[in-house]
Amino acid sequence: MSPLSFFLVHPCFKALRSLLILCCFSVLIQFTLASKARHFKWEVGYLFWSPDCVENVVMGINGQFPGPTIRAKAGDTIVVELTNKLHTEGVVIHWHGIRQLGTPWADGTASISQCVINPEETFVYRFKVDKAGTYFYHGHYGMQRSAGLYGSLIVDVAEGEKEPFHYDGEINLLLSDWWHQSVHDQEVGLSSNPFRWIGEPQSLLINGRGQFNCSLAAHFSNSSSIQCKIRGNAQCAPPRLHVLPNKTYRLRVASTTSLASLNLAVGDHKMVVVEADGNYLQPFAVNDMDIYSGETYSVLITTDQNPSMNYWVSVSVRGRHPQTPPGLTILNYHPNSPSKLPTSPLPVSPRWDDYVHSKSFTNKILALQGSPRPPVHYNRQVFLLNTQNKINGYTKWSINNISLVLPATPYLGSIKFGLKGAFDHKSPPENFSNHYDVMRPPINPNSTHGSGIYKFNFNSTVDVILQNANALSENVSEIHPWHLHGHDFWVLGYGEGKFSEKDVKKFNLKNPPLRNSVVIFPYGWTAIRFVADNPGVWAFHCHIEPHLHMGMGVVFSEGIERIKKIPNEALGCGLTGKMLMNNPHT
Amino acid sequence: MSPLSFFLVHPCFKALRSLLILCCFSVLIQFTLASKARHFKWEVGYLFWSPDCVENVVMGINGQFPGPTIRAKAGDTIVVELTNKLHTEGVVIHWHGIRQLGTPWADGTASISQCVINPEETFVYRFKVDKAGTYFYHGHYGMQRSAGLYGSLIVDVAEGEKEPFHYDGEINLLLSDWWHQSVHDQEVGLSSNPFRWIGEPQSLLINGRGQFNCSLAAHFSNSSSIQCKIRGNAQCAPPRLHVLPNKTYRLRVASTTSLASLNLAVGDHKMVVVEADGNYLQPFAVNDMDIYSGETYSVLITTDQNPSMNYWVSVSVRGRHPQTPPGLTILNYHPNSPSKLPTSPLPVSPRWDDYVHSKSFTNKILALQGSPRPPVHYNRQVFLLNTQNKINGYTKWSINNISLVLPATPYLGSIKFGLKGAFDHKSPPENFSNHYDVMRPPINPNSTHGSGIYKFNFNSTVDVILQNANALSENVSEIHPWHLHGHDFWVLGYGEGKFSEKDVKKFNLKNPPLRNSVVIFPYGWTAIRFVADNPGVWAFHCHIEPHLHMGMGVVFSEGIERIKKIPNEALGCGLTGKMLMNNPHT
Repeated sequence: MSPLSFFLVHPCFKALRSLLILCCFSVLIQFTLASKARHFKWEVGYLFWSPDCVENVVMGINGQFPGPTIRAKAGDTIVVELTNKLHTEGVVIHWHGIRQLGTPWADGTASISQCVINPEETFVYRFKVDKAGTYFYHGHYGMQRSAGLYGSLIVDVAEGEKEPFHYDGEINLLLSDWWHQSVHDQEVGLSSNPFRWIGEPQSLLINGRGQFNCSLAAHFSNSSSIQCKIRGNAQCAPPRLHVLPNKTYRLRVASTTSLASLNLAVGDHKMVVVEADGNYLQPFAVNDMDIYSGETYSVLITTDQNPSMNYWVSVSVRGRHPQTPPGLTILNYHPNSPSKLPTSPLPVSPRWDDYVHSKSFTNKILALQGSPRPPVHYNRQVFLLNTQNKINGYTKWSINNISLVLPATPYLGSIKFGLKGAFDHKSPPENFSNHYDVMRPPINPNSTHGSGIYKFNFNSTVDVILQNANALSENVSEIHPWHLHGHDFWVLGYGEGKFSEKDVKKFNLKNPPLRNSVVIFPYGWTAIRFVADNPGVWAFHCHIEPHLHMGMGVVFSEGIERIKKIPNEALGCGLTGKMLMNNPHT
Repeated sequence: MSPLSFFLVHPCFKALRSLLILCCFSVLIQFTLASKARHFKWEVGYLFWSPDCVENVVMGINGQFPGPTIRAKAGDTIVVELTNKLHTEGVVIHWHGIRQLGTPWADGTASISQCVINPEETFVYRFKVDKAGTYFYHGHYGMQRSAGLYGSLIVDVAEGEKEPFHYDGEINLLLSDWWHQSVHDQEVGLSSNPFRWIGEPQSLLINGRGQFNCSLAAHFSNSSSIQCKIRGNAQCAPPRLHVLPNKTYRLRVASTTSLASLNLAVGDHKMVVVEADGNYLQPFAVNDMDIYSGETYSVLITTDQNPSMNYWVSVSVRGRHPQTPPGLTILNYHPNSPSKLPTSPLPVSPRWDDYVHSKSFTNKILALQGSPRPPVHYNRQVFLLNTQNKINGYTKWSINNISLVLPATPYLGSIKFGLKGAFDHKSPPENFSNHYDVMRPPINPNSTHGSGIYKFNFNSTVDVILQNANALSENVSEIHPWHLHGHDFWVLGYGEGKFSEKDVKKFNLKNPPLRNSVVIFPYGWTAIRFVADNPGVWAFHCHIEPHLHMGMGVVFSEGIERIKKIPNEALGCGLTGKMLMNNPHT
């Protein structure tokens, strides 16, 4: 045996070699994990599906509803090749809560950030998920979110980073509401004269599953609801949450409802709220929590209850007289049977109009110590009064008396190229009459359509005061959850009645939470602050799908001059398409 | 008074002056009428409507259903500025029967002649109606025709020209079928596995009006149908045909049905058929007439019956076991009340499967003497076998074993610019196996998708033999009415079973009718001849909407090199859009 071969077969060298290979692999894996591109090939199409045990047509992805969950790590690049397999409809997908830093064309808003993807076409969404948190994605064209085009997007902390709280397991809860009337018909009704309201949802869904006309908890109900009989493999079978006793679980909760504001409770279990919209909170414990459309939360529950029982997970409607039974599923303690129904009654949810309860919850939401703090001063203050209105007899929602209509040419391109006639070049008003009585129906309910934008100086600090008011009918003022694209904002405060300059003093500049969605309570106001530091065009709108459809939104833009090259794929329609076809090197 | 002023006021001169002005006007009017551009501004949108007394959502134009009737004179230019007011769907309109000589981009076929018009966009259709006749228009994207997107297009003879028959008045009958299930859901069902057939229509409509679940003629019926109670202004009130006694009326009949083949009869009145698809026929008299989807006819009726009575106009289903009651309205002799129901029973329509009756009618359709005659020889002969098939478990229709799928990029542009990868560049087969047994279900039912085209030499004469066969089930062979875009063709003959070369001898080259639509009978063949003299890309397909949706069509192209400039507006999607944005001067 030569010395070399001796060396190679010597057990000591063998171990050394193994270790060396292991180390190399480990470094390689770490490197790969550190910042990974995660590729997805998706096809959007209609499916027959029974979300609430009643067969209907839903908009799904790759043959499933809800769409697949994206799971990534902070710093990863998400690449979704989205092919439109609808028959005659365009489609886009918005990545709700992802700021799209440097990729404003990937925000997935029809008429704002891109042209819609037409049938049989493919568009590649490529964007970075820079911040860990609980997010989701959904259609942002017409009312395609309501049609079922949504799914979860979960970003874990980057490799080597740690969450500021401990948990043993994780459970995902994507909440939505569901109608039996097709979204196409809903759209026609909302834009008809006489106006036809969509009404309350038939069912609430947890992870796309609900029960129409039956209740899992019928035996506790004093109504006439019947006990559900669901086959185990039914599409509407409740998604049972399997847990081990004496562990802590992170529930990742997101609401993609079309209309409903929700309250979530887990029977006999406290919830500790630790994250909202991808930002850490000062932890606080509650028995039930509100969640408005467009919001996400992480809450921790500890499975410290009697382990021989299962427990209810219940979702019910807030802020509107509920005509929809609660959405239910079961927290299933191992090794109990997942079909074993809880023996305790449903958790008591607050009365739908108990706004004191809701405000109490909302006021507990504060940033975790050490979170970024807002600039002390604003550069610009914008007041946005939302009112219900009439335009030529059609019922609309307006902001400062302008009801948003989106143009055929996406703003991102038309602003970038300075195209005339793409949208109203007059900026919409930044304020409303001092004399407007927010407590009564509008004296003059008429408003006008508009497509103008609010243009902010790059890096300026903007305060927005969202002002609620009485709707068209006496004594009606609704909840509106507003969502901002491209940014997180600080929630500086909430108040009752009409905002006044004195209220500025009450702003919380110490530990306001960072969020991308925030509620305005009936007859109240909400103040937010953000830094216009993300070049792009960004929708800011009520996340209630029919309200947006009826014009309840505005459009912000900043730093467009800093955007170098928008991919043609996002611009091939309307005036930008025309311009590029005539003169491509503009 | 000066001699001049005397002259000017002299009555004789006054008369002369009036005459002069009249003459000038007349010339001016004649000139204007001779070749006029007729402008229309249309908005396509969804409406709540009750076509058959049951409220539904229909696709209408300018708030009406069916769309407005276009009336023009031969030689006129039609200009339709079409704005898409749908929420998320593209749209196009096909001008059925108009050959689009020199304007192939205005044929209104999605994926073939143009990119779809997206919501809020406007496309201008500008084309010449060169030939008098009865036509119609309809959506040609997805199944939007079935959704209600259709209307009449009537071209009168040019000023100074005369029709080869006399009539005193004219009545328009646009026939269609109607489902209560939304077209969106129909589309999903047809493209699902398991396959879901749309079933028979709920109602037959005459000028967009029908009656579901009641009958105008209930008192004659031995079924349990109830007498209709319709308010006079109801959207489903039958469109009564007002006539004077002892006159001759031209009924212009068009069928835009999604599925149903129809039989039309007018109680106690003979019909003299004089025109088909914009071409004059050798007149022939019948008691009832068949009309297949995509066909148009003019028939003359003489109001020579007892003038104190009204008479039934009845439309019933042919070729499929009818589950739809007849569509009815009333021929109303002046001065009888239009609400006075006829006292005679419904005209007897032939049994749905009495193909002998249908063939007898079809064989009477011959060109009026003096009509253009076909070239005596063909340059190319194409056999098209239509079969029902399976592709990966999905139910399809195929032609020579290829089921048509339309590409994202319209052929007209991708062929013109020689773009690679826009569609299958391999031409589809021109024939099928000699051994194929058309009388039995396919031995191997599997077929494949394809998007290839048949390319014809410019000005060549093409014969197409359409061969019917047994569907997937035993003893089923259906009627298929085929429609050719961009051309009229001569119908050389029909036959039973499998076409053989001997059948060529039986071709009618003497007085074959010119048409744009023709039927293939169950287990039969139909032979047509046309001259490929119209530069463009032209669909040739079964006019049954769900059959086309399931792949039952082919695409022809000819003389693309002769097309100078296709408007960019028709090309701004898919690969042509991409190409033009990168390099606009190709």
